[in-house]
Amino acid sequence: MPMKIINLDHMSATPLLPEVQDAMIEAIKTTYGNPSSQHKLGDLAATALEKARESVARLIHCTSMKELVFTSGGTESVNHAVKGVAMAKADKGKHIVTSNIEHNAVLRTLRRLKMMDYQVTSVPVDSKGRLNPMDVAKAIRDDTILVSIMHSNNEIGTIQPIEEIAKITRERKVLFHTDAVDSVGVVPVDVEKLGVDLLSFASNAYYGPTGVGGLWIRRGTTVWPLLDGGVQENNKRAGTENLIGIMGMGVAADLALRDMNTRVAHAKKLKEKLLRELPNYITEYMINGDPENSLPHLLSFSIKYIEGESIVLMLDDESIAVSTRSACAAGALQASHVLLSIGRDFADAQGTLVVTFGLDNKEDDVLKFLSALRESVRTLREISPLVAKAASA
Amino acid sequence: MPMKIINLDHMSATPLLPEVQDAMIEAIKTTYGNPSSQHKLGDLAATALEKARESVARLIHCTSMKELVFTSGGTESVNHAVKGVAMAKADKGKHIVTSNIEHNAVLRTLRRLKMMDYQVTSVPVDSKGRLNPMDVAKAIRDDTILVSIMHSNNEIGTIQPIEEIAKITRERKVLFHTDAVDSVGVVPVDVEKLGVDLLSFASNAYYGPTGVGGLWIRRGTTVWPLLDGGVQENNKRAGTENLIGIMGMGVAADLALRDMNTRVAHAKKLKEKLLRELPNYITEYMINGDPENSLPHLLSFSIKYIEGESIVLMLDDESIAVSTRSACAAGALQASHVLLSIGRDFADAQGTLVVTFGLDNKEDDVLKFLSALRESVRTLREISPLVAKAASA
Repeated sequence: MPMKIINLDHMSATPLLPEVQDAMIEAIKTTYGNPSSQHKLGDLAATALEKARESVARLIHCTSMKELVFTSGGTESVNHAVKGVAMAKADKGKHIVTSNIEHNAVLRTLRRLKMMDYQVTSVPVDSKGRLNPMDVAKAIRDDTILVSIMHSNNEIGTIQPIEEIAKITRERKVLFHTDAVDSVGVVPVDVEKLGVDLLSFASNAYYGPTGVGGLWIRRGTTVWPLLDGGVQENNKRAGTENLIGIMGMGVAADLALRDMNTRVAHAKKLKEKLLRELPNYITEYMINGDPENSLPHLLSFSIKYIEGESIVLMLDDESIAVSTRSACAAGALQASHVLLSIGRDFADAQGTLVVTFGLDNKEDDVLKFLSALRESVRTLREISPLVAKAASA
Repeated sequence: MPMKIINLDHMSATPLLPEVQDAMIEAIKTTYGNPSSQHKLGDLAATALEKARESVARLIHCTSMKELVFTSGGTESVNHAVKGVAMAKADKGKHIVTSNIEHNAVLRTLRRLKMMDYQVTSVPVDSKGRLNPMDVAKAIRDDTILVSIMHSNNEIGTIQPIEEIAKITRERKVLFHTDAVDSVGVVPVDVEKLGVDLLSFASNAYYGPTGVGGLWIRRGTTVWPLLDGGVQENNKRAGTENLIGIMGMGVAADLALRDMNTRVAHAKKLKEKLLRELPNYITEYMINGDPENSLPHLLSFSIKYIEGESIVLMLDDESIAVSTRSACAAGALQASHVLLSIGRDFADAQGTLVVTFGLDNKEDDVLKFLSALRESVRTLREISPLVAKAASA
C-alpha cells in the first residue's frame, strides 16, 4: 500500500531492493537458530552469517573476515570506534582530532568523552566543506590518540581527502577512524587504499535495512568493545546477531558492488539536471558543497528568505519527500552546524534543502520537484518578513 | 526448508511465530521510511514504531511510553543500563552490587567497569541458585550506585526475589537494574510491581526476532546513553531504529501477553514429564535450580561421568537440539560460573544439559529426547575415564 511518493530523501532511508526483500523474507521463513549454538540449527545460522560477512567485506575491499564486525547501524559503529579507541588508549593520551562538520554520532560521542576529561580539537573546513590535511597535521599533539574525520558529509555531500589524512596519521602513529556511513555502497570505498584504521558504515545507505551496520577494524588495532557480554563477532561485539537484517545487508552489498557504476551515473545525471534547471525555477539560492568532491546523489542548496522546514511540509502535501537536514537531527531545533561551518548565516542555513536521489527516481521527478518547489517558494516568500526586510534594506 | 529438528534449546533461539513473520514481511514489503523524517514516508514509519512500542510496553506493564527504549538486543540493554548508571552516578560513588550467577552481558560489563576503577561486590547464591536479599542489603555501601541482579537465570532457570531486593534498594536509595532477558515474555513481568528502576529484555526470548530488545528506564532515572548521536528514542538511544525487527517484537509481545497462561501450562507439562521420566532413562544425575522459583520451560541437570558437549553433538546427529549452557558462552572453554556457584564441581558442571521447551514441542519430543539421551549416555560412559575412576574408588 505504499503511497505514490516521489522520494528525494534517500539520505533518510533507501527503499529495500526486491532482492534484499527476498533474502530477508527467506531468512524470516527459514527461522534460523542462534549462530553461536553448537547444533545444526546454529550451524545454519552461522553459515548464513558468514556468507553475509563475505559480501559486505567485498564492498569495502576488506580481505580478512575477522576485521569486520556487524553492528546495529552507523551510530553504533561510530560510538564503538570512537569510544572504543578513547578507552583503550587512555593511558597514552586523551586528545582527539575531528572536523567541524561531523555527524551527530561523532559530535555527541566526542561531547560525551569531554565529560570524561578527553580533549577535542576540531579542524575547520573551507566554504565548500573540505578540510585541509595540513590542519589535521597541525592539530595532532603528543597525546593525540585518535583522528576521526568523516568520509563524506551527510548534509552537503563533500568528500574529504581521507587518503592524504591517513598518510599523516600513519606517520604520526595516531589511529584514524572515518565515518563512511554515507559513502559505503554509494561511492567506491577501499579500506586498504584509504589507509584508515577504523571505518564505520551502515546498510541503509545502500538499499539495505535500517538497524544494521558494520565497523571495520584493522587487524591489530586495540579497541574496547561497546557491548560487553558473549563471545560473538570474534569477541569484539557481544549480543546475538540480527541475522535477518544482516542477510539483507549482505545482498544489498552484493548489488551495490555490482551496480556501483550505473548507480553513480544515474544519480549524476539527475543531479546535473537539477543543477541545470534550478535557475529556471527559483532565484536567490546558493549551492552548498564541493562540486569536485561530492556524493553523486546529493545536492544541498540554501534558498534565501524561506524556512527549509516549511518547504519540506509543503512539498510533503504534494507527495514529494525531501529533507532540510539529517533525519537524525530533525527533532533538534538549532541551525545546522555543518552549514554554519561553511559560512552560511543562520537564516540561510534554515532555508536549506537537501535532495538525495535514488534508484527509484526518474528525470521527470526533477521537473515535478522543481514545479512544486517554485510554488512553495513563491507562497512562502509572499508571507516572509525576511523578504520585506531585504526589500527595504 | 527447515530440517525436521526437535528443538529443545529455545533459550538459544525461539522460532518466529507465523504472525510475527507476517508482520515483518509486511514491514519489508511496505518499505517504511525513517521514523525521524518530517514527511509522509517518515510519518508512516513513526506510527508503526509507536504502535510496536505500545505492544511491548503492555507486556511489561509499562504505562509511560517515554520509559521504553528499543535496543539491538538484551546485551545492548544490559550494557546501556549498567554502564549508563555507572557513568551518570560516578560522582556519587563507584561501587556496584551484583550476584555470582549473572549472564556474561552483566558479568563482562562489570569487568569492564573494574578497568575504570569501579568496585564490584558479588553476592553468592544458595545451592538452588537463589540469593538472599539480606546479602544484598549487607553488600550495599555508602558509595554503592547500582544493584544489578538478574530476574531469572539462563542456565538453571532460578527466579530471584526481585521485589524483596527492590524494597531494600529503594530504602537505601540505590538504583536497581534487573536483567530480565530470559523472563520477559516467558513469565509475567510487571515493572511497577517489581519496583526496579531499570529492566532489560529481548524479543528473541518470546518468539520475536534476534537483534531487537528493550530497556525500560523508570521516569526520572539519569542514565548516560550507550549510543550517542541523533535524537531518536527520546534522546536516550541514538541511531535509526531497526523498524522491521521492532515490528516483529511488537507482534511477538502481543502474542506473549495473550497466550502467557497457556504457554506456561504447556511448558510446565513437558518439564514435569521430563522430570518424571528422567530416572527411567538415566542414572546418576542431579537437577539444577530451584523447583519452587523457576522458569517454567527450563530444566538443567548434570549427568555424572560425561561431557555435556559430547551429548549435544551426539543428539545433534539424531536431529535433537539441546544445549549445555548459554549459546553466548558456547565459544568459551571454562566451566559454567553459574554451576560452580551452586556447588557443582568442575566435572559435573561440564556434564550439564539445559533443556528449554517451546511452543513447537510435543509430549512425544520428551520421550524421543530421553531415548536418544539414554543411548548417548551409555556410549559415553563406556569410554569415560571418569566412570573407571569412580568404579575403582
